[in-house]
Amino acid sequence: MFESAVLGRTCPPQEYETLSNTLRLRLFKAQRDARACGIPVVISVGGVDGTGRGAVINLLSEWMDAKGIRNHTFWTETDEERNRPEEWRFWRRLPGAGEMGIFLGGWYGEAIRKFCCGEMKTNAFDLLMQRRTQFEHTLAASGMVIIKFWLHISEKEHKKRLKDRLENRKLHHFTPYDRESAKNYAGLVKAAGRAITLTDRVDAPWTIVDAVDARFRNIAVVRTIIAAIEHAVEQKKAEKAKAEAKTVDVTAPVAAEDGAPTVEMSALDAVDLSRTCPPELYKKELKKLQDDLSDLTYRAYRKGISSTLLFEGWDAAGKGGAIRRLTAGIDARITRVIPISAPSDEELAHHYLWRFWRHVPMDGFITIYDRSWYGRVLVERVENLTAQADWKRAYAELNDFEARLQGHGNILVKYWLHISSEEQLRRFHERESTPWKQYKITQEDWRNREKREAYLKAADEMFARTSTEQAPWHIIPAEDKKFARLEVLRIYRDALEKALGRGRHS
Amino acid sequence: MFESAVLGRTCPPQEYETLSNTLRLRLFKAQRDARACGIPVVISVGGVDGTGRGAVINLLSEWMDAKGIRNHTFWTETDEERNRPEEWRFWRRLPGAGEMGIFLGGWYGEAIRKFCCGEMKTNAFDLLMQRRTQFEHTLAASGMVIIKFWLHISEKEHKKRLKDRLENRKLHHFTPYDRESAKNYAGLVKAAGRAITLTDRVDAPWTIVDAVDARFRNIAVVRTIIAAIEHAVEQKKAEKAKAEAKTVDVTAPVAAEDGAPTVEMSALDAVDLSRTCPPELYKKELKKLQDDLSDLTYRAYRKGISSTLLFEGWDAAGKGGAIRRLTAGIDARITRVIPISAPSDEELAHHYLWRFWRHVPMDGFITIYDRSWYGRVLVERVENLTAQADWKRAYAELNDFEARLQGHGNILVKYWLHISSEEQLRRFHERESTPWKQYKITQEDWRNREKREAYLKAADEMFARTSTEQAPWHIIPAEDKKFARLEVLRIYRDALEKALGRGRHS
Repeated sequence: MFESAVLGRTCPPQEYETLSNTLRLRLFKAQRDARACGIPVVISVGGVDGTGRGAVINLLSEWMDAKGIRNHTFWTETDEERNRPEEWRFWRRLPGAGEMGIFLGGWYGEAIRKFCCGEMKTNAFDLLMQRRTQFEHTLAASGMVIIKFWLHISEKEHKKRLKDRLENRKLHHFTPYDRESAKNYAGLVKAAGRAITLTDRVDAPWTIVDAVDARFRNIAVVRTIIAAIEHAVEQKKAEKAKAEAKTVDVTAPVAAEDGAPTVEMSALDAVDLSRTCPPELYKKELKKLQDDLSDLTYRAYRKGISSTLLFEGWDAAGKGGAIRRLTAGIDARITRVIPISAPSDEELAHHYLWRFWRHVPMDGFITIYDRSWYGRVLVERVENLTAQADWKRAYAELNDFEARLQGHGNILVKYWLHISSEEQLRRFHERESTPWKQYKITQEDWRNREKREAYLKAADEMFARTSTEQAPWHIIPAEDKKFARLEVLRIYRDALEKALGRGRHS
Repeated sequence: MFESAVLGRTCPPQEYETLSNTLRLRLFKAQRDARACGIPVVISVGGVDGTGRGAVINLLSEWMDAKGIRNHTFWTETDEERNRPEEWRFWRRLPGAGEMGIFLGGWYGEAIRKFCCGEMKTNAFDLLMQRRTQFEHTLAASGMVIIKFWLHISEKEHKKRLKDRLENRKLHHFTPYDRESAKNYAGLVKAAGRAITLTDRVDAPWTIVDAVDARFRNIAVVRTIIAAIEHAVEQKKAEKAKAEAKTVDVTAPVAAEDGAPTVEMSALDAVDLSRTCPPELYKKELKKLQDDLSDLTYRAYRKGISSTLLFEGWDAAGKGGAIRRLTAGIDARITRVIPISAPSDEELAHHYLWRFWRHVPMDGFITIYDRSWYGRVLVERVENLTAQADWKRAYAELNDFEARLQGHGNILVKYWLHISSEEQLRRFHERESTPWKQYKITQEDWRNREKREAYLKAADEMFARTSTEQAPWHIIPAEDKKFARLEVLRIYRDALEKALGRGRHS
């Protein structure tokens, strides 16, 4: 793998001078084009110690407009990061549209060094690499350019540089892994080779750079970046031209999407909406469930078990009311309710999952999403806000996201509150006539109501593709609010009990 | 202080029913008006244990539109928070324009409980309360509504409730302070009384609530919130009407601001711009300084000493180049460069200092701001982006902000890079003719150049008001780029040496 990278190729100063004048301009132009097209770029700079990773990063800031670039490293994990699914710390630092993130060591450095030092077993390492591939695939699919470098030198050269640095007291390490791996060339190269093999994909390729000569190294790095960005820009422009060429006649009646027949029988039709809760039992049962939740959530907090709850369902199905009954039973200090509506411009500039990753709970805490990432395959699909290829791909991405949450130990509960069309109408009217509920009913609600068929179809496909054994949807008959609220609390209580070990709760 | 709060007043159920119907609507309307006017609201809910602080917070979410409300608590300090100036964790959670932040315990809970348990001495407590006053003053001055509650019950009632809760195993504590203070009524009340006395200001007043009866408590809290928001909304509307009444004739020639005479002699005129660096010395000296910085910043990192550097100065004065020479000497893993240009919409929705607090470095790290919070009294003043009263107030706010950084142990270095008008013109032309520098020169630069007089005046006042002994401005003669760069590095090196203990560096 590294054969061609230890040839020790060089670039003479004069040639470098000429080349760098040309390349600098092209690199700069590429950055400007990426910005204009709104393409986010991730550049990962890894390599053997002493190959000038820092120098490369500085060069990039110098040759491009530093204003669009942010440098990152992941060697200092904070407790806010440690207490969340591993990828959270990558997500929070991803570049937005038109921005560039340069990552020293990328999301590989730590794993490679740990594997090299024997702190990570082969299986765990391979699994992690697989997750990285998936992660990068999710990003690349949204249009992110991902460029990964491994700066390489021969063992002999490495030894020489290490000696130099030690003598000049120039070797600064931040973690014990750094120190060990710096001295263990063979181990490091083996680990890096394994990582590169497992994660070298066409949408996030590795480039191995012969780094013995700084000038040759710089030229190689810059050329690769230029090529990758120029390619992405061309593609983006071609797509745009194509999209403009086939403009849609918006006045034409909308054909059934994909030419598929309209829904005849939906999963929601099977829901028994006649279920109710006897009013005389409600108060008592609610109190009991809230008491249970209070106790269980404290215990989960102490054990560091976090919960992610999400609510979807028809407008006026009672999501807000159910959430308030939930939170009334739980200490406000460990709960956050995140209402999902239109994204902010910072959120819009990022991958669509970024704004959900932002609020992923720390260990022991609870995040309740009022509407969620499923907007991608519901409203965004129905309203044509997202291209078909993108929302079709989303099912896998959402399952994957949820697997990350659960993999970190999160309790995940997904609710769909279901009501009939008639009941919805009744509640709309009620809202219109109750002064403090008027704000809850807008023209948009009426418009959405007209699209019930389309939403039904979208929901059906969503249940089919994302109600998995690990993360099932709970479809709650919500025609009777009281019944629905108790169900919601009950399901979360059961999930907590299960996570805390069945039977412990008396 | 608490006399009237232990009267045990109650509100009969029927009266509550009637009142709550009216108040609920008014509260909701107040929230909507605050949103429409872009007023951020902070509600702090503290009190004796067992007074229903959580219940109050839940009530507020129920009576208002939960979508604009976020609940927070500060009892779990993460290491990301611990490693930054204390206020950072408040800033990161402040509501934006039109939003509402409800803080359980506010920014008082922890201090009150620590003081109550003897973990904080009187002097430290008083000083902290003074800082809180200043903090709230900064927020209130920007138009934030701050409402602080202390829910109170008598000692007898407290004892009774404590017993109830202990018997029902309903007492959950997160910190040892909670446990102690729950049992130490007298100490808690004494501490709270001291806090309230020291921080009860007209722009952030306390309301002590007789909380023995939940209904009475709710009504009192809601009424206070309504009054505070309605008042703020009225004021805002009045201001707006006033502003509209005296519309400015934009076609009239702009009078010298405040009617003051134009600058005759500026502090910058005294700068000796003839200073240069002999080219033959530059490389060697730069290398040496970078080596020193490399070593010193590693040592600072290990000691947890962080640095905040900021660069201001004329367009084309060489800020970017100086910053690149700085960062070239420092490990990219501990450095962040934050270019300050137009704020994002999330930033715009917050207090103008929020976007700087966002990037305050963790212990041991370095943040370099390329342009800074001084934009408030430079570009925002010159371009009339901010009302005079606001930028005039900013000097004190900026000094205060910097005192917070330094108080936490940050090294703070403020650079102004100075060049003559002629040299600026020469560089503008050079930029226009150098392909990879063209992006650096825009119409805006030319426009700014025409306003040199106004900037000069603003800079002069800025130096006069914010070049303090603790946080002086370093005005760097930058006519010769090389000289300026070496100066910049030298000043930071000296600051590091001083912070690390002079003489340690050989």
